[in-house]
Amino acid sequence: MCDTCGCHTSGHTEAKVVEVHRSLLAANQKQADRNRRHIEAMGAVAVNMISSPGSGKTTLLEHTLDRIGSRLKIGVIEGDIETERDADRIRKKGVPVVQLTTGGACHLDAPLVHKGLHDLEHQSKDGTFDLIFIENVGNLVCPATFDLGEHERMILVSVPEGSDKPAKYPTTFVGAQTFIITKMDLLEYFDFSVDEAEREALRLNPELTILKVGATAGLGMDNWINYLQALSAR
Amino acid sequence: MCDTCGCHTSGHTEAKVVEVHRSLLAANQKQADRNRRHIEAMGAVAVNMISSPGSGKTTLLEHTLDRIGSRLKIGVIEGDIETERDADRIRKKGVPVVQLTTGGACHLDAPLVHKGLHDLEHQSKDGTFDLIFIENVGNLVCPATFDLGEHERMILVSVPEGSDKPAKYPTTFVGAQTFIITKMDLLEYFDFSVDEAEREALRLNPELTILKVGATAGLGMDNWINYLQALSAR
Repeated sequence: MCDTCGCHTSGHTEAKVVEVHRSLLAANQKQADRNRRHIEAMGAVAVNMISSPGSGKTTLLEHTLDRIGSRLKIGVIEGDIETERDADRIRKKGVPVVQLTTGGACHLDAPLVHKGLHDLEHQSKDGTFDLIFIENVGNLVCPATFDLGEHERMILVSVPEGSDKPAKYPTTFVGAQTFIITKMDLLEYFDFSVDEAEREALRLNPELTILKVGATAGLGMDNWINYLQALSAR
Repeated sequence: MCDTCGCHTSGHTEAKVVEVHRSLLAANQKQADRNRRHIEAMGAVAVNMISSPGSGKTTLLEHTLDRIGSRLKIGVIEGDIETERDADRIRKKGVPVVQLTTGGACHLDAPLVHKGLHDLEHQSKDGTFDLIFIENVGNLVCPATFDLGEHERMILVSVPEGSDKPAKYPTTFVGAQTFIITKMDLLEYFDFSVDEAEREALRLNPELTILKVGATAGLGMDNWINYLQALSAR
C-alpha cells in the first residue's frame, strides 16, 4: 500500500485475466492446428511474417512476387488494424490476396486467418497454392503468442530499428524458425551491428536460420528466393 | 461451421475476455489518476512516449538530456520487456532513471509506473522533478489503451517506418497530444511523405501538435527543447 497514491495491486483481477487468457490461447491453438491441416489440404506451406511496423514486410513481398510470382502459386493474407493499403499493393502483382483487419487488435489470430484461407481459396482457380504468406499486424510482441497454423514463423528486423532488438524482444525470437534482417542496403547510415543481432538471436534460439536482404537494392534476394523455393517443396 | 476445418467461433470466451479486459482497464485508470496526482505532488509534468521498436525514443532522450539535463530536473522511466540497456544509456547522462521490465507484457501499465515513480523519487535529493519521461515498451498498438498518469502522450514515428503509419494505427494517434516524426535527417534515403504523415495524423486528431526532429544531426532540436520547456512550466 502506497501512502502517496493509496494504491494496492489487484490480485483477483490478475488471476481472472490469466485464466481467461489461457482458455483463449487454448481455443486459438485448436483452430491453428485445423488451419495447418487446411493449408496442407490446399497443397501449401504457410509462412507467418512478424515484425515491427515499417520494417519492410510488404516491400519484401512485392519484390518476392516479382521474382517468383509466375513460377510458384502464391497467396497472401495481409493483417492490419485498419486500411486495405497493403492488400492493394500486393494485388497489383496479380496474385490472390486477402486483407484481414483486426479492428483494433494487435495481432492476427487463428480464427481470423481461417476466414482468410477460405477467401483466398475462392480466388484460386483450383483452390491450391504452393506458398501462402501471412503478413501479421506490425508488432514485435503480441503476434508471437498466437499460432496461426503456419509452418514457418519469420521475424523481420530492419537495419534502422537497431541491432539490440533480439535481446529486447526475446520471446518473439524463441518461437521463430527464421530471422530476416531487412534494409541491409542502408547499413552504412545506421549504427547497426549485424554481428550483435545475429549473436543475440542465436543465443536465444540456436536453430534460427538467418537471412539478410535489401529488397529494393536486390541485396541477398537470390538466397532468399532459393530458401523460399526449398520451403515450398517441403 | 467450416467443413474443411470444423471450426466455430467461441462467443462465450470472447464475452468473458471483454468483461475481464474492462475491469482490468478500470483498475488501470484508477491507478493512472493516482499516478497523475503523485507526479503533480512531485512538482512534475509527465510525458508518455509511444512508438514502434527502434524509432529513436532513447536516442532522442539522450540528445534532449545533453541540451536541458542541467537546466531542468529530469527523471526517466524506461519500459522494456527485458534488459536494462535503455536505462544504462540514460544513466550515463547523470539523471535519475528507473528501468521497468514487463517480463513479456507488450505495454507499461499504471501500477508498474507507480512503482517506478517511487524508485525515481528515491534517486532525487528533494523528491521533486520538472519533467518525467516515461519511455513505453516499443509497440505502436497496445500502449495506447493504458493511461499511465501522464500529462502528455507523444507518438513517435521514424522516417524509415513509412508515412502510412498514422492511417494504419489510428487509435494510437487519436489518444495523443503530440506527434513527433524522428530521423528527419534520413528523409532523402526513404520514400516518406511528410505531407501524407501530417495530413493523416491531423485527420485522425486535429488537435495534435506535430514536431519534426533528427536528433543525431541536431535537426529541429531547438523547437523540441522550447516545446519541452513550455510543457514543464505548465
